[in-house]
Amino acid sequence: MPSSPPNATPPGQPSSDRWPTAITRVEPDKILVRGYLLDELMGRLSFADAIYLLITGELASPTVSRVMDALLVASLDHGATPPSTLAARHVAGTGAPLRAAAAAGILALGSPLGGGGSIEGCMRFLDDGLALVGDWVSYDDAARRLLDQRSDSGRIPPGFGHRRHRRDPRAVRLMQLAFELELEGGHTQLARAVEQELGERQAAAGEPRMSLNADGAIAAVAGDLGLDAETATMLFTISRVPGLVTHAIEERRRQDAMRPIDPSKHVYDGPGERRLPDSPL
Amino acid sequence: MPSSPPNATPPGQPSSDRWPTAITRVEPDKILVRGYLLDELMGRLSFADAIYLLITGELASPTVSRVMDALLVASLDHGATPPSTLAARHVAGTGAPLRAAAAAGILALGSPLGGGGSIEGCMRFLDDGLALVGDWVSYDDAARRLLDQRSDSGRIPPGFGHRRHRRDPRAVRLMQLAFELELEGGHTQLARAVEQELGERQAAAGEPRMSLNADGAIAAVAGDLGLDAETATMLFTISRVPGLVTHAIEERRRQDAMRPIDPSKHVYDGPGERRLPDSPL
Amino acid sequence: MPSSPPNATPPGQPSSDRWPTAITRVEPDKILVRGYLLDELMGRLSFADAIYLLITGELASPTVSRVMDALLVASLDHGATPPSTLAARHVAGTGAPLRAAAAAGILALGSPLGGGGSIEGCMRFLDDGLALVGDWVSYDDAARRLLDQRSDSGRIPPGFGHRRHRRDPRAVRLMQLAFELELEGGHTQLARAVEQELGERQAAAGEPRMSLNADGAIAAVAGDLGLDAETATMLFTISRVPGLVTHAIEERRRQDAMRPIDPSKHVYDGPGERRLPDSPL
Amino acid sequence: MPSSPPNATPPGQPSSDRWPTAITRVEPDKILVRGYLLDELMGRLSFADAIYLLITGELASPTVSRVMDALLVASLDHGATPPSTLAARHVAGTGAPLRAAAAAGILALGSPLGGGGSIEGCMRFLDDGLALVGDWVSYDDAARRLLDQRSDSGRIPPGFGHRRHRRDPRAVRLMQLAFELELEGGHTQLARAVEQELGERQAAAGEPRMSLNADGAIAAVAGDLGLDAETATMLFTISRVPGLVTHAIEERRRQDAMRPIDPSKHVYDGPGERRLPDSPL
Repeated sequence: MPSSPPNATPPGQPSSDRWPTAITRVEPDKILVRGYLLDELMGRLSFADAIYLLITGELASPTVSRVMDALLVASLDHGATPPSTLAARHVAGTGAPLRAAAAAGILALGSPLGGGGSIEGCMRFLDDGLALVGDWVSYDDAARRLLDQRSDSGRIPPGFGHRRHRRDPRAVRLMQLAFELELEGGHTQLARAVEQELGERQAAAGEPRMSLNADGAIAAVAGDLGLDAETATMLFTISRVPGLVTHAIEERRRQDAMRPIDPSKHVYDGPGERRLPDSPL
Repeated sequence: MPSSPPNATPPGQPSSDRWPTAITRVEPDKILVRGYLLDELMGRLSFADAIYLLITGELASPTVSRVMDALLVASLDHGATPPSTLAARHVAGTGAPLRAAAAAGILALGSPLGGGGSIEGCMRFLDDGLALVGDWVSYDDAARRLLDQRSDSGRIPPGFGHRRHRRDPRAVRLMQLAFELELEGGHTQLARAVEQELGERQAAAGEPRMSLNADGAIAAVAGDLGLDAETATMLFTISRVPGLVTHAIEERRRQDAMRPIDPSKHVYDGPGERRLPDSPL
Repeated sequence: MPSSPPNATPPGQPSSDRWPTAITRVEPDKILVRGYLLDELMGRLSFADAIYLLITGELASPTVSRVMDALLVASLDHGATPPSTLAARHVAGTGAPLRAAAAAGILALGSPLGGGGSIEGCMRFLDDGLALVGDWVSYDDAARRLLDQRSDSGRIPPGFGHRRHRRDPRAVRLMQLAFELELEGGHTQLARAVEQELGERQAAAGEPRMSLNADGAIAAVAGDLGLDAETATMLFTISRVPGLVTHAIEERRRQDAMRPIDPSKHVYDGPGERRLPDSPL
Repeated sequence: MPSSPPNATPPGQPSSDRWPTAITRVEPDKILVRGYLLDELMGRLSFADAIYLLITGELASPTVSRVMDALLVASLDHGATPPSTLAARHVAGTGAPLRAAAAAGILALGSPLGGGGSIEGCMRFLDDGLALVGDWVSYDDAARRLLDQRSDSGRIPPGFGHRRHRRDPRAVRLMQLAFELELEGGHTQLARAVEQELGERQAAAGEPRMSLNADGAIAAVAGDLGLDAETATMLFTISRVPGLVTHAIEERRRQDAMRPIDPSKHVYDGPGERRLPDSPL
């Protein structure tokens, strides 16, 4: 049977024996990812586009491609103090492979808000709100109802407020890009409405305003891209690995082995603030 | 003291207490990665460029940017059978967070050739050869000497030959891109010379030709980009995470929990072979 | 200041700076675990006793000591087919340290029933039942009510039934030991009552009887020892590490590197069935 | 063939398809570990004995059993400052399962001396020395030659000296137990000779004496038990898990989530120093 594909169920073998996968097909001298030749993708697709293809199964449009890059760049590195960085550095300082350091860092990427952290929490929060929006309920109405529901618990919704930033610059930029690229949908519009309403309530109460943070903006934009909470959380996981790896390498090269690390004692000694060149490099 | 930067050593505290990091500086409403504003990078830099900046400390030129994308896309996914995929799938099939599946997959990314696998091995092999190249020794001479040294052990150098592919399409494409982008340096030229010489020896011996594989091409191109073996291996680690994550998600969504997985029984049921559109999307 | 203990808050430093730990105190030439000299524990306490001391903070009585050993031995190894074993073997087959194999195996120890697997699930189930038991409600009554509540969902309670075993020999033995050592409390008695009631219902329905499994027995006995669900799950985690490590070592020593593993194709070639010597060795 | 065991190669299927394992045989209602019924081991074997059986394939004698317990208790916990504890605590402080915290801690159990840390290093060092010992070369002679070889590098052999302890109480106790139980062999005797010779050289040089540490004593005693370096390192890995788990639980219960941890700021607030009761509990 000459036309039989290499992975097909051999004749006479019950097909229930086989388990399906729709990601990658490997044949001699040929690798197909979601149906596309991997070597054709190389040089044609950016890494972010390739990640989008891999995860969603389809090619990104040019605007989705741009927002995917921004979304992945947004979480590039969180500095020296998050648990994930410190777990990676502690492992890197021993004799372990850098890979092991990256793995330990990944294990610390969650948040006590839930398995998926505040990205997942915020996406669920926005999805709850979008279920309310309809003929007679605007985004502003939905935002009010969402916050009314939480006021008993007195808790800020996931994706809002930040320990260090009053206005999280990553959230501002990501929301701006979604607007410029005309990718705004229900999630981003509801997130804006919640931010507005929350700010007014906090101002009225004489409290500091808590604006959308990076996790919240990622949740909103990923939601409008049609990604579910789990997938958005995995994009965040992917985007944090380069930072974890870079900290692990730096720990190995600049510090004594096995040192106990006091995160509050770090001092930045890298290049001073600089601007990107105006034109593309 | 208005001019004191937030992370500076407070007066009266010995500076030896502090440990340095040159990666990221976090201030209120401001995140600087390698000196650049993170929100300025968003929308301007691709994810691959941002990874390059994070790891090397400098911006990629346009040609380096293109080869970085290709290098990261090259290892996008290895299909259903590698140990890393299977470790990730086995963890994903339990109640563990997908993050834990990704971590387990990363732990299986090495190879018995050494901590860093054949990328690291091939880079060391090429560096040994480049140390020989000089006024009177050409790349071809160096290739011959390198292979003579190994002939006793009868072993193929790391980065050559592949279990499934006679000609690894990823290696062919990556080497072609390096040539087109005029990024070829000593590592890629020596890798070509070794491939040529090895092929002739194998042909003479009546053996199947073993050509450069993806690991070898990554080692050669990364070497010409000035990256060391450890860093190149970490780029590979970064590039494999999206594939591990995608397999973990698919395992969770399409398979029974806790199943023992027979890798040889997988069957591809995704889209058939298709081509990229001619123009950019 | 001669009387100042080595870890005490130095004078003049706010004590809120300090974070407390009640586990181990390390001084020069002196290590105290839960207040006891570690070198005094060596040779006096069994490993199981030491684990009990470490986790609970107190010494085990002789009967608790015996049941702790049995509880830890119960989960010694689950053979070649569980996800945890396979994750560990897949990592061990690469160039990774055996430690990394153990870590990957641990990440796969959960179950889709919830973060802690069926031990945690069963303990919560039994705790729910014990809240019902009182002046007018016997263990048998509580068992009936618990099963009535689940009958809608048609689901077997966590800790009952096993894919391979009709009567799980580990559960039988652990419950017998708890009885012999007079350690039976509410959890074990309720577990027995549920097993009895469930069996009668299944017999009446013409279904196969599902008896208490190892996870259920561990949950019941650990509950009667006063351990909470999280701690019992961690005891299980501890007890599974030797098995994961042994599989990882065997994979490395007896198998080709990087092989894809078909769990259903394993064949046992170890010693045939044998009995323990009558007297202690 | 009625007596065919359940895992045997079915007739007509090539046996080369099968892969062997000599650890555990699982049949319906029957689990055999190294040939022994698991439920018979429960209540008869201590956890340490069971670990020994699992790893070596044979039952421990009463003296080996006692030294196994001491060896596993020796590494019970290393306090709040080692990288492994801190990696586990950092992961535990996020939303990750405690299992993930244990896994991250395990990944940090190595040491920069090599994959296996100083246990593996010391065992190799002692094995090198034992290769010298013979008709005309005593342990003292071998110790001198070993130290002469290292004097160029000026490095203390692995397994000697400790950052905190002048005399490591765990090493003293473990060596004493090996002596009392008449388990001393070449490794422990050579370790003593090296300690003696090293001490004399350091005294002569006016340097502080560096005595055998816990890793060194574990290496020596494990070597005399016939365990290889890899297996001894895995025993150490197993023995560290309860401590990692206990710190992870304490982090979760007593500390704020996601806190950056300064290891030097911990303060012990557990029970004061106390003695074991004279009689067994």
